[in-house]
Amino acid sequence: MSLLVVGSIAFDSVQTPFGVIQDALGGSATYFSYAASYFTPVRLVGVVGDDFPPEHRAMLEGRGVDTSGLIVEQGGKTFRWRGKYEGDMNNAETLEVHLNVLGTFDPDLSPAFAETPFVFLANGSPSMQRKVLSQSKGRKLVVADTMNFWIETQRDELNALLKEVDGLVLNDGEARMLTEEVNLVRAGEKVLALGPKFVIIKKGEHGAMFLSAEQSFVMPAYPLNDVVDPTGAGDSFAGGFMGYLASVGRTDPAALKTAMAYGAVIASFNVQDFSLRRFQRTERPEIDARLEAYRAMMSF
Amino acid sequence: MSLLVVGSIAFDSVQTPFGVIQDALGGSATYFSYAASYFTPVRLVGVVGDDFPPEHRAMLEGRGVDTSGLIVEQGGKTFRWRGKYEGDMNNAETLEVHLNVLGTFDPDLSPAFAETPFVFLANGSPSMQRKVLSQSKGRKLVVADTMNFWIETQRDELNALLKEVDGLVLNDGEARMLTEEVNLVRAGEKVLALGPKFVIIKKGEHGAMFLSAEQSFVMPAYPLNDVVDPTGAGDSFAGGFMGYLASVGRTDPAALKTAMAYGAVIASFNVQDFSLRRFQRTERPEIDARLEAYRAMMSF
Repeated sequence: MSLLVVGSIAFDSVQTPFGVIQDALGGSATYFSYAASYFTPVRLVGVVGDDFPPEHRAMLEGRGVDTSGLIVEQGGKTFRWRGKYEGDMNNAETLEVHLNVLGTFDPDLSPAFAETPFVFLANGSPSMQRKVLSQSKGRKLVVADTMNFWIETQRDELNALLKEVDGLVLNDGEARMLTEEVNLVRAGEKVLALGPKFVIIKKGEHGAMFLSAEQSFVMPAYPLNDVVDPTGAGDSFAGGFMGYLASVGRTDPAALKTAMAYGAVIASFNVQDFSLRRFQRTERPEIDARLEAYRAMMSF
Repeated sequence: MSLLVVGSIAFDSVQTPFGVIQDALGGSATYFSYAASYFTPVRLVGVVGDDFPPEHRAMLEGRGVDTSGLIVEQGGKTFRWRGKYEGDMNNAETLEVHLNVLGTFDPDLSPAFAETPFVFLANGSPSMQRKVLSQSKGRKLVVADTMNFWIETQRDELNALLKEVDGLVLNDGEARMLTEEVNLVRAGEKVLALGPKFVIIKKGEHGAMFLSAEQSFVMPAYPLNDVVDPTGAGDSFAGGFMGYLASVGRTDPAALKTAMAYGAVIASFNVQDFSLRRFQRTERPEIDARLEAYRAMMSF
Protein backbone atom coordinates (compact mmCIF):
# COMPACT_ATOMS: atom_id res chain seq x y z
CA MET A 1 0.00 0.00 0.00
CA SER A 2 1.16 3.55 -0.52
CA LEU A 3 2.47 5.84 2.16
CA LEU A 4 2.15 9.58 2.52
CA VAL A 5 4.55 11.81 4.41
CA VAL A 6 4.09 15.49 5.18
CA GLY A 7 7.16 17.21 6.53
CA SER A 8 10.20 19.36 6.01
CA ILE A 9 12.79 19.42 3.26
CA ALA A 10 15.95 21.16 4.37
CA PHE A 11 19.47 22.18 3.63
CA ASP A 12 21.46 21.03 6.65
CA SER A 13 24.89 22.16 7.75
CA VAL A 14 26.14 19.76 10.36
CA GLN A 15 29.27 19.45 12.45
CA THR A 16 30.09 16.28 14.37
CA PRO A 17 33.35 14.97 15.89
CA PHE A 18 33.79 13.10 12.60
CA GLY A 19 33.42 15.88 10.08
CA VAL A 20 31.43 18.72 8.64
CA ILE A 21 28.88 19.00 5.86
CA GLN A 22 27.46 22.16 4.28
CA ASP A 23 23.99 22.66 2.77
CA ALA A 24 23.34 18.95 2.41
CA LEU A 25 19.91 17.61 1.60
CA GLY A 26 18.01 16.89 4.80
CA GLY A 27 14.69 17.45 6.52
CA SER A 28 12.23 15.07 8.14
CA ALA A 29 10.28 14.25 4.97
CA THR A 30 13.49 13.62 3.05
CA TYR A 31 14.95 11.13 5.52
CA PHE A 32 11.56 9.51 6.01
CA SER A 33 10.95 9.15 2.27
CA TYR A 34 14.32 7.65 1.48
CA ALA A 35 14.06 5.18 4.38
CA ALA A 36 10.50 4.17 3.45
CA SER A 37 11.39 3.86 -0.23
CA TYR A 38 13.17 0.57 0.51
CA PHE A 39 9.74 -0.90 1.21
CA THR A 40 6.95 0.87 -0.62
CA PRO A 41 6.04 3.77 -2.94
CA VAL A 42 6.07 7.07 -1.06
CA ARG A 43 4.07 10.25 -1.62
CA LEU A 44 5.87 13.32 -0.36
CA VAL A 45 4.22 16.60 0.60
CA GLY A 46 6.48 19.52 1.39
CA VAL A 47 7.75 22.89 0.32
CA VAL A 48 11.06 24.23 -0.96
CA GLY A 49 12.32 27.49 -2.42
CA ASP A 50 13.48 28.08 -5.93
CA ASP A 51 17.02 27.44 -4.70
CA PHE A 52 16.18 23.73 -4.55
CA PRO A 53 18.21 21.89 -7.21
CA PRO A 54 16.18 19.74 -9.61
CA GLU A 55 18.70 16.93 -9.08
CA HIS A 56 17.40 16.40 -5.55
CA ARG A 57 13.87 15.97 -6.83
CA ALA A 58 15.08 13.65 -9.54
CA MET A 59 17.02 11.60 -6.97
CA LEU A 60 13.88 11.14 -4.84
CA GLU A 61 11.78 10.28 -7.91
CA GLY A 62 14.42 7.69 -8.76
CA ARG A 63 13.69 6.08 -5.39
CA GLY A 64 9.99 5.73 -6.16
CA VAL A 65 9.02 8.87 -4.28
CA ASP A 66 6.10 10.75 -5.89
CA THR A 67 7.14 14.40 -5.54
CA SER A 68 4.05 15.86 -7.15
CA GLY A 69 3.14 17.24 -3.72
CA LEU A 70 6.44 19.09 -3.42
CA ILE A 71 5.67 22.79 -3.81
CA VAL A 72 8.37 25.09 -5.16
CA GLU A 73 7.79 28.63 -3.90
CA GLN A 74 9.11 31.02 -6.48
CA GLY A 75 11.21 33.75 -4.87
CA GLY A 76 11.41 31.75 -1.66
CA LYS A 77 14.30 29.98 0.01
CA THR A 78 14.40 26.41 1.27
CA PHE A 79 14.40 25.79 5.04
CA ARG A 80 17.94 25.74 6.46
CA TRP A 81 19.28 24.25 9.67
CA ARG A 82 22.79 24.41 11.09
CA GLY A 83 23.71 22.27 14.05
CA LYS A 84 26.48 20.60 15.96
CA TYR A 85 26.87 17.33 17.83
CA GLU A 86 29.46 16.74 20.53
CA GLY A 87 30.39 14.04 23.03
CA ASP A 88 28.00 11.09 22.85
CA MET A 89 26.08 12.86 20.03
CA ASN A 90 22.73 12.18 21.69
CA ASN A 91 21.66 15.81 21.40
CA ALA A 92 22.05 18.34 18.60
CA GLU A 93 22.91 21.91 19.41
CA THR A 94 21.05 24.13 16.97
CA LEU A 95 23.28 26.97 15.80
CA GLU A 96 21.00 28.51 13.17
CA VAL A 97 17.48 28.00 11.88
CA HIS A 98 16.02 29.77 8.87
CA LEU A 99 12.45 28.58 8.39
CA ASN A 100 12.15 30.44 5.07
CA VAL A 101 9.33 28.89 2.99
CA LEU A 102 8.60 26.37 5.75
CA GLY A 103 7.33 29.22 7.94
CA THR A 104 4.15 29.54 5.90
CA PHE A 105 3.83 25.88 4.87
CA ASP A 106 0.12 25.16 4.47
CA PRO A 107 -0.21 21.84 2.70
CA ASP A 108 -3.17 20.81 0.54
CA LEU A 109 -3.50 17.18 -0.42
CA SER A 110 -4.39 16.33 -4.00
CA PRO A 111 -7.46 14.05 -4.34
CA ALA A 112 -5.16 11.10 -5.08
CA PHE A 113 -2.90 11.80 -2.10
CA ALA A 114 -5.96 12.21 0.17
CA GLU A 115 -6.73 8.53 -0.46
CA THR A 116 -3.37 7.26 0.82
CA PRO A 117 -3.93 4.59 3.50
CA PHE A 118 -0.70 5.01 5.51
CA VAL A 119 0.09 8.55 6.66
CA PHE A 120 3.04 9.97 8.55
CA LEU A 121 2.85 13.50 9.89
CA ALA A 122 6.47 14.42 10.48
CA ASN A 123 7.32 17.01 13.13
CA GLY A 124 5.39 20.22 12.49
CA SER A 125 2.80 22.39 14.17
CA PRO A 126 -0.11 20.35 15.52
CA SER A 127 -2.56 22.73 13.84
CA MET A 128 -0.95 22.04 10.46
CA GLN A 129 -0.85 18.32 11.20
CA ARG A 130 -4.56 18.36 12.08
CA LYS A 131 -5.36 20.20 8.87
CA VAL A 132 -3.64 17.49 6.85
CA LEU A 133 -5.51 14.85 8.82
CA SER A 134 -8.83 16.48 8.03
CA GLN A 135 -8.05 16.09 4.32
CA SER A 136 -6.77 12.55 4.62
CA LYS A 137 -9.97 10.73 3.73
CA GLY A 138 -8.51 7.32 2.90
CA ARG A 139 -6.33 6.94 5.95
CA LYS A 140 -6.00 3.57 7.63
CA LEU A 141 -3.08 4.31 9.91
CA VAL A 142 -1.87 7.75 10.91
CA VAL A 143 1.28 8.30 12.94
CA ALA A 144 2.51 11.73 14.04
CA ASP A 145 5.84 13.01 15.31
CA THR A 146 6.10 16.00 17.60
CA MET A 147 8.69 17.91 19.62
CA ASN A 148 9.22 19.98 22.77
CA PHE A 149 8.45 23.29 21.01
CA TRP A 150 4.89 22.20 20.20
CA ILE A 151 4.40 20.65 23.62
CA GLU A 152 5.22 24.05 25.10
CA THR A 153 3.44 26.33 22.65
CA GLN A 154 0.47 24.42 21.17
CA ARG A 155 -0.58 22.05 23.90
CA ASP A 156 -4.32 22.30 23.20
CA GLU A 157 -3.89 21.63 19.48
CA LEU A 158 -1.49 18.79 20.30
CA ASN A 159 -4.02 17.25 22.70
CA ALA A 160 -6.66 17.43 19.97
CA LEU A 161 -4.26 15.82 17.49
CA LEU A 162 -3.50 12.99 19.91
CA LYS A 163 -7.18 12.04 19.95
CA GLU A 164 -7.10 11.68 16.15
CA VAL A 165 -3.91 9.72 15.44
CA ASP A 166 -3.19 6.01 15.76
CA GLY A 167 0.40 6.42 16.84
CA LEU A 168 2.73 9.05 18.25
CA VAL A 169 6.51 9.14 17.85
CA LEU A 170 8.60 11.32 20.15
CA ASN A 171 11.91 11.18 21.97
CA ASP A 172 12.49 10.37 25.63
CA GLY A 173 12.92 13.98 26.75
CA GLU A 174 9.74 14.97 24.93
CA ALA A 175 7.78 12.08 26.41
CA ARG A 176 8.90 13.15 29.87
CA MET A 177 7.95 16.76 29.15
CA LEU A 178 4.56 15.85 27.72
CA THR A 179 3.57 13.62 30.63
CA GLU A 180 5.63 14.96 33.54
CA GLU A 181 6.70 11.38 34.23
CA VAL A 182 10.38 10.48 34.53
CA ASN A 183 9.86 6.71 34.21
CA LEU A 184 9.55 6.07 30.46
CA VAL A 185 7.09 3.20 30.73
CA ARG A 186 4.78 5.36 32.83
CA ALA A 187 5.32 8.27 30.44
CA GLY A 188 4.30 5.98 27.57
CA GLU A 189 1.24 4.79 29.48
CA LYS A 190 0.21 8.42 30.01
CA VAL A 191 0.63 9.15 26.30
CA LEU A 192 -1.71 6.25 25.52
CA ALA A 193 -4.26 7.75 27.90
CA LEU A 194 -4.18 10.90 25.75
CA GLY A 195 -5.50 9.04 22.73
CA PRO A 196 -3.00 7.20 20.50
CA LYS A 197 -3.29 3.42 20.20
CA PHE A 198 0.49 3.17 20.36
CA VAL A 199 3.46 5.32 21.20
CA ILE A 200 7.09 5.00 20.15
CA ILE A 201 9.62 6.66 22.47
CA LYS A 202 12.94 7.16 20.71
CA LYS A 203 16.04 6.96 22.93
CA GLY A 204 18.82 7.83 20.47
CA GLU A 205 21.80 5.49 20.79
CA HIS A 206 19.75 3.41 23.28
CA GLY A 207 17.06 2.41 20.81
CA ALA A 208 13.32 2.84 21.09
CA MET A 209 10.42 1.74 23.28
CA PHE A 210 6.99 0.71 21.96
CA LEU A 211 3.83 0.73 24.06
CA SER A 212 0.26 -0.23 23.23
CA ALA A 213 -2.57 -2.02 25.01
CA GLU A 214 -1.39 -5.29 23.45
CA GLN A 215 2.38 -5.16 23.88
CA SER A 216 5.23 -3.13 25.33
CA PHE A 217 8.87 -3.71 24.47
CA VAL A 218 12.23 -2.07 23.94
CA MET A 219 14.35 -2.46 20.83
CA PRO A 220 18.00 -1.51 21.29
CA ALA A 221 19.80 0.49 18.64
CA TYR A 222 21.86 -1.71 16.32
CA PRO A 223 25.36 -1.43 17.84
CA LEU A 224 27.83 0.36 15.57
CA ASN A 225 31.41 1.48 16.01
CA ASP A 226 31.17 4.05 13.21
CA VAL A 227 28.38 6.49 14.06
CA VAL A 228 29.19 9.64 12.11
CA ASP A 229 26.08 11.84 12.15
CA PRO A 230 22.79 11.15 13.96
CA THR A 231 20.86 13.77 11.97
CA GLY A 232 17.71 12.20 10.56
CA ALA A 233 17.95 9.01 12.62
CA GLY A 234 14.49 9.45 14.12
CA ASP A 235 12.85 10.20 10.77
CA SER A 236 14.71 7.31 9.16
CA PHE A 237 13.44 5.08 11.97
CA ALA A 238 9.89 6.26 11.28
CA GLY A 239 10.39 5.74 7.55
CA GLY A 240 11.50 2.15 8.04
CA PHE A 241 8.68 1.54 10.51
CA MET A 242 5.90 3.00 8.34
CA GLY A 243 7.43 1.75 5.09
CA TYR A 244 7.40 -1.82 6.33
CA LEU A 245 3.80 -1.56 7.62
CA ALA A 246 2.61 -0.07 4.33
CA SER A 247 4.43 -2.79 2.38
CA VAL A 248 2.65 -5.57 4.24
CA GLY A 249 -0.60 -3.64 4.65
CA ARG A 250 -0.95 -4.78 8.25
CA THR A 251 -1.03 -3.11 11.65
CA ASP A 252 -1.39 -6.11 13.98
CA PRO A 253 1.00 -6.52 16.95
CA ALA A 254 3.39 -8.85 15.09
CA ALA A 255 3.63 -6.45 12.14
CA LEU A 256 4.20 -3.50 14.47
CA LYS A 257 7.06 -5.32 16.17
CA THR A 258 8.78 -6.28 12.93
CA ALA A 259 8.29 -2.69 11.78
CA MET A 260 10.09 -1.47 14.91
CA ALA A 261 13.01 -3.78 14.12
CA TYR A 262 13.19 -2.48 10.54
CA GLY A 263 13.06 1.05 11.91
CA ALA A 264 16.04 0.39 14.16
CA VAL A 265 18.01 -1.21 11.34
CA ILE A 266 17.24 1.53 8.80
CA ALA A 267 18.23 4.20 11.33
CA SER A 268 21.51 2.38 11.91
CA PHE A 269 22.45 2.82 8.26
CA ASN A 270 21.50 6.48 8.27
CA VAL A 271 23.88 7.41 11.11
CA GLN A 272 26.91 5.84 9.44
CA ASP A 273 27.46 8.88 7.23
CA PHE A 274 26.30 12.46 6.69
CA SER A 275 23.04 13.38 4.98
CA LEU A 276 21.72 10.55 2.77
CA ARG A 277 25.16 9.27 1.81
CA ARG A 278 24.98 5.90 3.52
CA PHE A 279 21.45 5.27 2.20
CA GLN A 280 22.67 6.12 -1.26
CA ARG A 281 25.08 3.21 -1.21
CA THR A 282 22.66 0.77 0.47
CA GLU A 283 20.22 -1.58 -1.24
CA ARG A 284 17.50 -3.67 0.34
CA PRO A 285 19.48 -6.95 0.63
CA GLU A 286 22.02 -5.27 2.92
CA ILE A 287 19.14 -4.04 5.09
CA ASP A 288 17.62 -7.50 5.32
CA ALA A 289 21.01 -9.01 6.17
CA ARG A 290 21.44 -6.53 9.03
CA LEU A 291 17.88 -7.26 10.18
CA GLU A 292 18.80 -10.94 10.46
CA ALA A 293 21.97 -10.06 12.39
CA TYR A 294 19.85 -7.88 14.68
CA ARG A 295 17.38 -10.71 15.20
CA ALA A 296 20.21 -13.12 16.03
CA MET A 297 21.69 -10.63 18.50
CA MET A 298 18.49 -10.63 20.53
CA SER A 299 17.87 -14.38 20.42
CA PHE A 300 19.01 -16.43 23.37
CA MET B 1 29.47 -25.43 39.84
CA SER B 2 30.13 -23.10 42.73
CA LEU B 3 30.69 -19.39 42.52
CA LEU B 4 32.88 -17.13 44.61
CA VAL B 5 32.32 -13.42 45.13
CA VAL B 6 34.66 -11.01 46.86
CA GLY B 7 33.17 -7.61 47.57
CA SER B 8 31.54 -5.22 49.98
CA ILE B 9 28.82 -5.70 52.55
CA ALA B 10 27.23 -2.40 53.50
CA PHE B 11 24.59 -0.56 55.40
CA ASP B 12 22.94 1.70 52.84
CA SER B 13 20.80 4.76 53.45
CA VAL B 14 19.10 5.66 50.22
CA GLN B 15 16.71 8.37 49.12
CA THR B 16 14.85 8.17 45.79
CA PRO B 17 11.75 9.99 44.49
CA PHE B 18 9.80 6.98 45.78
CA GLY B 19 10.97 6.79 49.37
CA VAL B 20 13.76 6.55 51.88
CA ILE B 21 15.50 3.67 53.58
CA GLN B 22 17.95 3.80 56.50
CA ASP B 23 20.82 1.41 57.25
CA ALA B 24 19.48 -1.31 54.99
CA LEU B 25 21.57 -4.32 54.03
CA GLY B 26 23.45 -3.61 50.82
CA GLY B 27 26.88 -3.79 49.23
CA SER B 28 28.15 -5.34 46.03
CA ALA B 29 28.77 -8.82 47.45
CA THR B 30 25.35 -8.86 49.11
CA TYR B 31 23.39 -8.01 45.96
CA PHE B 32 25.55 -10.30 43.88
CA SER B 33 25.16 -13.22 46.29
CA TYR B 34 21.40 -12.95 46.56
CA ALA B 35 20.99 -12.66 42.79
CA ALA B 36 23.31 -15.59 42.11
CA SER B 37 21.67 -17.71 44.79
CA TYR B 38 18.70 -18.28 42.48
CA PHE B 39 21.03 -20.36 40.32
CA THR B 40 23.87 -21.89 42.26
CA PRO B 41 25.61 -22.14 45.65
CA VAL B 42 27.58 -18.98 46.41
CA ARG B 43 30.72 -18.48 48.47
CA LEU B 44 30.97 -15.00 49.89
CA VAL B 45 34.16 -13.27 50.96
CA GLY B 46 33.85 -9.93 52.71
CA VAL B 47 34.20 -8.04 55.93
CA VAL B 48 31.79 -6.45 58.41
CA GLY B 49 32.04 -4.88 61.86
CA ASP B 50 30.64 -6.24 65.08
CA ASP B 51 27.58 -4.07 64.44
CA PHE B 52 26.48 -6.57 61.75
CA PRO B 53 23.33 -8.35 62.94
CA PRO B 54 23.50 -12.17 62.91
CA GLU B 55 20.09 -12.20 61.19
CA HIS B 56 21.68 -10.87 58.00
CA ARG B 57 24.20 -13.68 57.94
CA ALA B 58 21.47 -16.19 58.70
CA MET B 59 19.35 -14.78 55.87
CA LEU B 60 22.22 -15.24 53.39
CA GLU B 61 22.94 -18.74 54.68
CA GLY B 62 19.27 -19.50 54.15
CA ARG B 63 19.78 -18.62 50.47
CA GLY B 64 22.58 -21.14 50.09
CA VAL B 65 25.33 -18.58 50.54
CA ASP B 66 28.39 -19.94 52.34
CA THR B 67 29.38 -17.08 54.65
CA SER B 68 32.41 -18.79 56.17
CA GLY B 69 34.52 -16.20 54.33
CA LEU B 70 32.70 -13.31 55.98
CA ILE B 71 35.09 -11.79 58.51
CA VAL B 72 33.64 -9.98 61.53
CA GLU B 73 36.14 -7.40 62.76
CA GLN B 74 35.68 -7.02 66.49
CA GLY B 75 35.56 -3.36 67.49
CA GLY B 76 35.05 -2.34 63.86
CA LYS B 77 32.07 -0.88 62.09
CA THR B 78 30.49 -2.10 58.85
CA PHE B 79 30.93 -0.03 55.67
CA ARG B 80 28.20 2.60 55.32
CA TRP B 81 26.97 4.46 52.24
CA ARG B 82 24.38 7.20 52.01
CA GLY B 83 23.14 8.30 48.61
CA LYS B 84 20.35 9.93 46.70
CA TYR B 85 18.78 9.43 43.28
CA GLU B 86 16.84 12.10 41.43
CA GLY B 87 15.21 12.57 38.05
CA ASP B 88 15.76 9.54 35.79
CA MET B 89 17.71 7.86 38.63
CA ASN B 90 20.53 6.87 36.29
CA ASN B 91 23.16 8.30 38.64
CA ALA B 92 23.52 8.14 42.40
CA GLU B 93 24.71 11.16 44.28
CA THR B 94 26.89 9.97 47.14
CA LEU B 95 26.16 11.97 50.28
CA GLU B 96 28.32 10.05 52.76
CA VAL B 97 30.79 7.18 52.69
CA HIS B 98 32.29 5.56 55.75
CA LEU B 99 34.64 2.81 54.63
CA ASN B 100 35.14 1.60 58.21
CA VAL B 101 36.33 -2.03 58.17
CA LEU B 102 36.28 -2.08 54.36
CA GLY B 103 39.19 0.37 54.34
CA THR B 104 41.63 -2.33 55.42
CA PHE B 105 39.91 -5.30 53.76
CA ASP B 106 42.62 -7.80 52.85
CA PRO B 107 40.90 -11.05 51.94
CA ASP B 108 42.48 -14.47 52.25
CA LEU B 109 40.78 -17.39 50.55
CA SER B 110 40.41 -20.63 52.46
CA PRO B 111 41.83 -23.69 50.64
CA ALA B 112 38.28 -24.74 49.71
CA PHE B 113 37.31 -21.29 48.42
CA ALA B 114 40.55 -21.09 46.42
CA GLU B 115 39.29 -24.04 44.36
CA THR B 116 36.06 -22.29 43.26
CA PRO B 117 35.76 -22.40 39.44
CA PHE B 118 33.63 -19.26 38.89
CA VAL B 119 34.93 -16.07 40.48
CA PHE B 120 33.51 -12.55 40.60
CA LEU B 121 35.68 -9.72 41.85
CA ALA B 122 33.19 -7.03 42.74
CA ASN B 123 34.26 -3.40 42.64
CA GLY B 124 37.34 -2.89 44.80
CA SER B 125 40.93 -1.81 44.46
CA PRO B 126 42.67 -3.55 41.56
CA SER B 127 45.57 -4.45 43.85
CA MET B 128 43.19 -6.25 46.21
CA GLN B 129 41.44 -7.90 43.27
CA ARG B 130 44.79 -9.13 41.92
CA LYS B 131 45.73 -10.52 45.31
CA VAL B 132 42.53 -12.57 45.38
CA LEU B 133 43.21 -13.77 41.85
CA SER B 134 46.66 -14.95 42.82
CA GLN B 135 45.06 -17.18 45.46
CA SER B 136 42.30 -18.44 43.20
CA LYS B 137 43.94 -21.65 42.05
CA GLY B 138 40.87 -23.46 40.76
CA ARG B 139 39.45 -20.64 38.69
CA LYS B 140 37.84 -21.36 35.33
CA LEU B 141 36.18 -17.99 34.71
CA VAL B 142 37.05 -14.74 36.44
CA VAL B 143 35.05 -11.56 35.95
CA ALA B 144 35.91 -8.25 37.60
CA ASP B 145 33.97 -5.05 38.15
CA THR B 146 35.70 -1.69 38.48
CA MET B 147 34.85 2.00 38.74
CA ASN B 148 36.05 5.50 37.88
CA PHE B 149 37.96 5.92 41.16
CA TRP B 150 40.30 3.00 40.32
CA ILE B 151 40.64 4.08 36.71
CA GLU B 152 41.92 7.41 37.97
CA THR B 153 44.04 6.29 40.90
CA GLN B 154 45.32 2.75 40.17
CA ARG B 155 45.60 2.62 36.42
CA ASP B 156 48.75 0.47 36.35
CA GLU B 157 47.30 -2.10 38.73
CA LEU B 158 44.05 -2.06 36.76
CA ASN B 159 45.90 -2.66 33.49
CA ALA B 160 47.70 -5.61 35.09
CA LEU B 161 44.36 -6.96 36.36
CA LEU B 162 42.81 -6.68 32.90
CA LYS B 163 45.48 -9.03 31.52
CA GLU B 164 44.47 -11.65 34.10
CA VAL B 165 40.66 -11.68 33.99
CA ASP B 166 38.30 -13.29 31.50
CA GLY B 167 35.66 -10.57 31.66
CA LEU B 168 35.25 -6.99 32.81
CA VAL B 169 32.01 -5.34 33.93
CA LEU B 170 31.78 -1.55 34.07
CA ASN B 171 29.27 1.17 33.29
CA ASP B 172 29.13 3.36 30.20
CA GLY B 173 30.75 6.39 31.80
CA GLU B 174 33.57 4.24 33.14
CA ALA B 175 34.10 2.54 29.78
CA ARG B 176 34.40 5.96 28.15
CA MET B 177 36.82 7.13 30.85
CA LEU B 178 38.96 4.00 30.62
CA THR B 179 39.29 4.10 26.82
CA GLU B 180 38.79 7.78 25.97
CA GLU B 181 36.25 6.65 23.36
CA VAL B 182 32.75 8.14 23.29
CA ASN B 183 31.28 5.47 21.00
CA LEU B 184 30.47 2.54 23.28
CA VAL B 185 31.19 -0.18 20.71
CA ARG B 186 34.63 1.31 20.12
CA ALA B 187 35.12 1.71 23.86
CA GLY B 188 34.29 -1.97 24.28
CA GLU B 189 36.70 -2.95 21.50
CA LYS B 190 39.45 -0.98 23.25
CA VAL B 191 38.71 -2.75 26.53
CA LEU B 192 39.10 -6.10 24.77
CA ALA B 193 42.48 -4.94 23.47
CA LEU B 194 43.54 -4.45 27.11
CA GLY B 195 43.13 -8.14 27.86
CA PRO B 196 39.66 -9.42 28.81
CA LYS B 197 38.00 -11.96 26.52
CA PHE B 198 34.70 -10.15 27.00
CA VAL B 199 33.40 -6.89 28.38
CA ILE B 200 29.95 -5.97 29.67
CA ILE B 201 29.10 -2.27 29.55
CA LYS B 202 26.15 -1.48 31.84
CA LYS B 203 23.88 1.35 30.70
CA GLY B 204 21.46 1.63 33.63
CA GLU B 205 17.85 1.94 32.45
CA HIS B 206 19.08 1.33 28.88
CA GLY B 207 20.36 -2.17 29.52
CA ALA B 208 23.81 -3.58 28.82
CA MET B 209 26.17 -4.22 25.93
CA PHE B 210 28.30 -7.34 25.55
CA LEU B 211 31.41 -7.53 23.38
CA SER B 212 33.78 -10.38 22.65
CA ALA B 213 35.67 -11.67 19.62
CA GLU B 214 32.74 -14.00 18.87
CA GLN B 215 29.71 -11.80 19.41
CA SER B 216 28.57 -8.28 20.23
CA PHE B 217 25.04 -7.37 21.21
CA VAL B 218 22.89 -5.12 23.35
CA MET B 219 20.27 -6.32 25.80
CA PRO B 220 17.73 -3.69 26.81
CA ALA B 221 16.66 -3.35 30.41
CA TYR B 222 13.38 -5.11 31.10
CA PRO B 223 10.84 -2.26 30.86
CA LEU B 224 9.19 -1.45 34.19
CA ASN B 225 6.80 1.23 35.32
CA ASP B 226 7.70 0.80 38.99
CA VAL B 227 11.43 1.42 39.37
CA VAL B 228 11.90 2.38 43.01
CA ASP B 229 15.63 2.17 43.77
CA PRO B 230 18.43 1.32 41.33
CA THR B 231 20.97 0.61 44.10
CA GLY B 232 22.58 -2.76 43.50
CA ALA B 233 21.22 -3.18 39.97
CA GLY B 234 24.68 -3.65 38.45
CA ASP B 235 25.76 -6.18 41.08
CA SER B 236 22.44 -8.00 40.78
CA PHE B 237 22.97 -8.12 37.01
CA ALA B 238 26.43 -9.60 37.57
CA GLY B 239 24.99 -12.07 40.07
CA GLY B 240 22.39 -13.30 37.61
CA PHE B 241 24.99 -13.46 34.85
CA MET B 242 27.62 -15.37 36.83
CA GLY B 243 25.05 -17.43 38.71
CA TYR B 244 23.59 -18.75 35.48
CA LEU B 245 27.01 -19.53 34.00
CA ALA B 246 28.10 -21.37 37.14
CA SER B 247 24.83 -23.31 37.19
CA VAL B 248 25.35 -24.63 33.65
CA GLY B 249 29.14 -24.83 33.97
CA ARG B 250 29.59 -23.34 30.49
CA THR B 251 31.16 -20.20 29.05
CA ASP B 252 30.44 -20.62 25.33
CA PRO B 253 28.82 -17.77 23.35
CA ALA B 254 25.27 -19.15 23.69
CA ALA B 255 25.65 -19.54 27.46
CA LEU B 256 27.10 -16.03 27.78
CA LYS B 257 24.12 -14.59 25.92
CA THR B 258 21.54 -16.41 28.04
CA ALA B 259 23.50 -15.29 31.10
CA MET B 260 23.18 -11.66 29.94
CA ALA B 261 19.42 -12.10 29.62
CA TYR B 262 19.20 -13.56 33.13
CA GLY B 263 21.32 -10.68 34.38
CA ALA B 264 18.91 -8.15 32.89
CA VAL B 265 15.88 -9.94 34.33
CA ILE B 266 17.38 -10.36 37.81
CA ALA B 267 18.36 -6.68 37.87
CA SER B 268 14.80 -5.75 36.92
CA PHE B 269 13.49 -7.41 40.08
CA ASN B 270 16.10 -5.72 42.26
CA VAL B 271 15.11 -2.18 41.23
CA GLN B 272 11.43 -2.69 42.06
CA ASP B 273 12.01 -2.07 45.77
CA PHE B 274 14.64 -0.89 48.24
CA SER B 275 17.53 -3.06 49.44
CA LEU B 276 16.82 -6.80 48.97
CA ARG B 277 13.07 -6.45 49.54
CA ARG B 278 11.92 -7.43 46.06
CA PHE B 279 14.33 -10.36 45.94
CA GLN B 280 13.02 -11.53 49.28
CA ARG B 281 9.55 -12.01 47.84
CA THR B 282 10.74 -13.53 44.55
CA GLU B 283 11.31 -17.19 43.79
CA ARG B 284 12.91 -18.75 40.73
CA PRO B 285 9.67 -19.50 38.81
CA GLU B 286 8.82 -15.78 38.69
CA ILE B 287 12.30 -15.08 37.33
CA ASP B 288 11.92 -17.70 34.63
CA ALA B 289 8.48 -16.36 33.70
CA ARG B 290 9.92 -12.86 33.27
CA LEU B 291 12.79 -14.28 31.24
CA GLU B 292 10.26 -15.81 28.85
CA ALA B 293 8.39 -12.47 28.62
CA TYR B 294 11.73 -10.76 27.94
CA ARG B 295 12.54 -13.29 25.21
CA ALA B 296 9.11 -12.78 23.63
CA MET B 297 9.56 -8.99 23.69
CA MET B 298 12.67 -9.25 21.56
CA SER B 299 11.33 -11.82 19.11
CA PHE B 300 9.98 -10.57 15.83
